[in-house]
Amino acid sequence: MLLEALIDRATQKGLKTVAVAAAEDAEVIEAVTEAVSCKLAKFILFGDKERIQQILNEKNATNNESDYLQIVHVDSKEMAAELAVKAVKNKDADVLMKGNIPTNVVLKAVLNKDYGLRTGSVLSHIAVFEIPGVDHFIIITDAGMNIAPDLVQKVQITKNAVAIAHSIGIDKPKVAPIAAVEVINPSMQTTIDAATLTMMNKRGQITGCIIDGPLGLDNAISTFAAEHKGIHSEVAGKADIILVPTIEVGNALYKSLVYFAKAKVGAIISGARAPIVLTSRADTAESKLYSLALALCSVSK
Amino acid sequence: MLLEALIDRATQKGLKTVAVAAAEDAEVIEAVTEAVSCKLAKFILFGDKERIQQILNEKNATNNESDYLQIVHVDSKEMAAELAVKAVKNKDADVLMKGNIPTNVVLKAVLNKDYGLRTGSVLSHIAVFEIPGVDHFIIITDAGMNIAPDLVQKVQITKNAVAIAHSIGIDKPKVAPIAAVEVINPSMQTTIDAATLTMMNKRGQITGCIIDGPLGLDNAISTFAAEHKGIHSEVAGKADIILVPTIEVGNALYKSLVYFAKAKVGAIISGARAPIVLTSRADTAESKLYSLALALCSVSK
Repeated sequence: MLLEALIDRATQKGLKTVAVAAAEDAEVIEAVTEAVSCKLAKFILFGDKERIQQILNEKNATNNESDYLQIVHVDSKEMAAELAVKAVKNKDADVLMKGNIPTNVVLKAVLNKDYGLRTGSVLSHIAVFEIPGVDHFIIITDAGMNIAPDLVQKVQITKNAVAIAHSIGIDKPKVAPIAAVEVINPSMQTTIDAATLTMMNKRGQITGCIIDGPLGLDNAISTFAAEHKGIHSEVAGKADIILVPTIEVGNALYKSLVYFAKAKVGAIISGARAPIVLTSRADTAESKLYSLALALCSVSK
Repeated sequence: MLLEALIDRATQKGLKTVAVAAAEDAEVIEAVTEAVSCKLAKFILFGDKERIQQILNEKNATNNESDYLQIVHVDSKEMAAELAVKAVKNKDADVLMKGNIPTNVVLKAVLNKDYGLRTGSVLSHIAVFEIPGVDHFIIITDAGMNIAPDLVQKVQITKNAVAIAHSIGIDKPKVAPIAAVEVINPSMQTTIDAATLTMMNKRGQITGCIIDGPLGLDNAISTFAAEHKGIHSEVAGKADIILVPTIEVGNALYKSLVYFAKAKVGAIISGARAPIVLTSRADTAESKLYSLALALCSVSK
């Protein structure tokens, strides 16, 4: 129910447009037509027009849908990425979505100095989870983009996630930079970074949230575990955002939630001029739809 | 049912003895009396005899139990650790268990050059999980001892875990060294170590198991995810042992399984002359019992 509510929230913001780079793919088209059937967004599909049309026909996309779908033929994947990025840059589209194209080709276009979508911020991966038994969103960042962020990057990753939290109705998210321990251990840089982020929040250098770390994942999300450890904190037991120290922690946690805890998830790349949806083949159609809804909620205007 | 079966397996090995360092603690005594009621093991309780006796009386420990319980009075926690370790060294006990005493005090005694329990191997943490929806044990190592093991330490951590797997009936465990990606990325040391461990297994340098990595956690435990990525591997989708790259990954994964996936767990420290049970206050009584059973299963003789 939590993630489903994002679809309503996105539609209430007014109809936005998604530019899809290389849409010639059955699974991508399935996500697109499903989004259209919810009136979630309009789409500009850059790619092999004939193939896109063929897939649309196979899916019996109705005439009604054509108001929501525009196809722009391009001759190569690289050109599809370039034109989709330019559509966002020119404000013809509000969200960028990866189609049947390697991630690095999309990111190369996003980071292009002439026509790209850089803002000066770090690009970071933000995953919003609905976990059985948990009555609020758990946001995990960064599980997909930055391998081993330093303190400066962690500040930007945190700011990106806080902005997304705001956009989905969490007014003052509680942020837990997690580590393997809750105490500062000078030989574990993660604990020092977590303590530093906490103080940067107290000094007003990171706003719109409450940060408290280092915390173990257990103390971050379980009041019982936090009390057992004697931790007094506004964040402990109630974290909205889990800031992981490395992509390895984030990746294992993400997969554990999906495969073992049967969580649902939507995810985007944030930090560019517009949100980017980079779903992969292994994602369910449902997850792709949630990612689109999350991206649309987070469009700034 | 998986972890409960370890209690039967442990009792079938014949009655062993557990030396408890600083047993004067209600929760420790509760775990001990519960173990005795299952006839799981005999215990030598080192600590404050008066206090131990008082807690036993409060718990209405019956006379029958006294055959299984021996109390040895000592004046300090340090002495309790020393004598408990010596009891294992002298083969009066088969397993060491931490009581109401800091972990570092126990480990200091374990690592003592004169009377300690070193074997030349690395001490490592091994957690055996029973996860709802998964029909076999998932063993995670090292989530509690080695912060950022290098290749040499990973080899020993793997060997320790393989020995434990054998002791609980997994004859040829499948080992997945996990990373954030399944391909070798020269800028991610974890992927290089994983590939190296895989080849060390193929060359007969690590035996009694099948290693294949790097794998993402999803490919390691889900055949569906592995097939989606086109990964062909004897381990993918069927991993028994998940080798994590750092304590941070292990800790987050461990907590995620317990708090989000509602998994049950037993855990020990392996690599010393005898298995060590280091349960913490936040562990459930059930988890403490499983840890004891796991330790008793893994006693070498």
